[in-house]
Amino acid sequence: MVSRATTVNQALNDAVSLREPQKIHEAMRYSLLAGGKRVRPVLCLAACELVGGSEAMAMPAACAIEMIHTMSLIHDDLPCMDNDDLRRGMPTNHKVFGEDVAVLAGDALLAFAFEHMAVDTAKAGVPPARIVRALGELSKAIGAEGLVAGQVVDIASEGIADVGLEKLEFIHVHKTAALLEGAVVLGAILGGGSDDEVERLRKFARCIGLLFQVVDDILDVTKSSEELGKTAGKDLVADKVTYPKLLGLEKSREFADELNKDAQAQLAAFDPDKAAPLVSLANYIAYRQN
Amino acid sequence: MVSRATTVNQALNDAVSLREPQKIHEAMRYSLLAGGKRVRPVLCLAACELVGGSEAMAMPAACAIEMIHTMSLIHDDLPCMDNDDLRRGMPTNHKVFGEDVAVLAGDALLAFAFEHMAVDTAKAGVPPARIVRALGELSKAIGAEGLVAGQVVDIASEGIADVGLEKLEFIHVHKTAALLEGAVVLGAILGGGSDDEVERLRKFARCIGLLFQVVDDILDVTKSSEELGKTAGKDLVADKVTYPKLLGLEKSREFADELNKDAQAQLAAFDPDKAAPLVSLANYIAYRQN
Repeated sequence: MVSRATTVNQALNDAVSLREPQKIHEAMRYSLLAGGKRVRPVLCLAACELVGGSEAMAMPAACAIEMIHTMSLIHDDLPCMDNDDLRRGMPTNHKVFGEDVAVLAGDALLAFAFEHMAVDTAKAGVPPARIVRALGELSKAIGAEGLVAGQVVDIASEGIADVGLEKLEFIHVHKTAALLEGAVVLGAILGGGSDDEVERLRKFARCIGLLFQVVDDILDVTKSSEELGKTAGKDLVADKVTYPKLLGLEKSREFADELNKDAQAQLAAFDPDKAAPLVSLANYIAYRQN
Repeated sequence: MVSRATTVNQALNDAVSLREPQKIHEAMRYSLLAGGKRVRPVLCLAACELVGGSEAMAMPAACAIEMIHTMSLIHDDLPCMDNDDLRRGMPTNHKVFGEDVAVLAGDALLAFAFEHMAVDTAKAGVPPARIVRALGELSKAIGAEGLVAGQVVDIASEGIADVGLEKLEFIHVHKTAALLEGAVVLGAILGGGSDDEVERLRKFARCIGLLFQVVDDILDVTKSSEELGKTAGKDLVADKVTYPKLLGLEKSREFADELNKDAQAQLAAFDPDKAAPLVSLANYIAYRQN
């Protein structure tokens, strides 16, 4: 996974080079190249290869997904949203570049994600029909029925005492799981997976998407800011509903284990050797410490 | 043009229906359906038909471009950007829904534009290769080399006394002309235009894109807020560089006439009957009063 992340970092660095106008590209690169774990791109590449595709077929999509993830972090951190000063151990984008540039850097990353994916995937020789289908999936994962829907309901739920498990799952499925699902499904489509393979991998992705968030919630209450590289305990301060708050810490951990098992069960239909990278990614998401 | 705009309004209303989560869709619809002139969608449809395509082939792209235009208005109006209270005669998005929802409504419109264009253009039977090419053009028109680039340089130029004609043109070519160019070029690509036709229409679009902005600048100093449906004279207050400020009002009007002539010259290669809608659109842009 580490060497894969390095390859992704190189591809991201090449895709968003420091060009004119300098300031906006500096702001885009600042957050994009701040050393995230690259879970989404690595998932995308692994799913593509599992169904028989090559790294080159999915790399532009993998980078696009990381650009969109970065956009959502930049906008989430804005004063009018979560108002966060620290991200990945560094000052947030608007703290360094100002709010106006931070809004625009997010917009530019979102637009460039689509450009990069459309133009560079075509160059890799992937049939256009697959690209169109993948672009449709990607945009659905972001918009008012994906990422943004989760964020909206999340904001609306802050400070409300009786947010139930159902609404919590809605928030996470949309805010976190949608893009993780997108990563896996895009890889599977671009790699030429059958409809059956794409749907199986979609189910896998939905489990690890929710798993990712449950673990995030657990880490928020059990780790320090220094260990996390971002403000710890902020869910508590913002009075946000989380799994540990709703289920308790122990039951949250049990729920995480269950989701990991369900995810891995979806991989049983594939050749175990080929599925090994996705198995270890699921385990990584379940047992990560930051 | 009015009946065309009505058809576009209906398509936009159908595309972004009022669905769950309600609040974000309300915010998206509030700005999207606030009755703009729909110049970009109408250009897109006219370009598609000029090269022999049908309305259905270009309608999703036409709607997508209007969604992106609306997104740029919502984000531009934010307190951290132009801080505007009035748009199209109504309170701006963040005044009604709050800054957080306004940021997200913009993000959602941007993402949905790509989804709508990818999914619905495919349904209209346009070959996938054309759709991929058009999506690449669209995203390029928005990102750090398009719309956003213009906005960044514009913000950086506020309050600077010696912004020259070259930088002014950079700002407008990117901030306004890029999306107008995108509208025309997308229509031409999706309608199946030859490379020669696409490039000819691109040149036409570049002229009317700049024309649009020169006329906007002139109207900003010659009309009242009531006539414009937005805050008049705000370029002056923000100490923004404009054509009237750089060239004087009369020379700005001469420049506008020249751009209109150059634009129409590009249409000479087409059948005059078929080119008539684009000719009147260029004249409309040149002689509009708001």
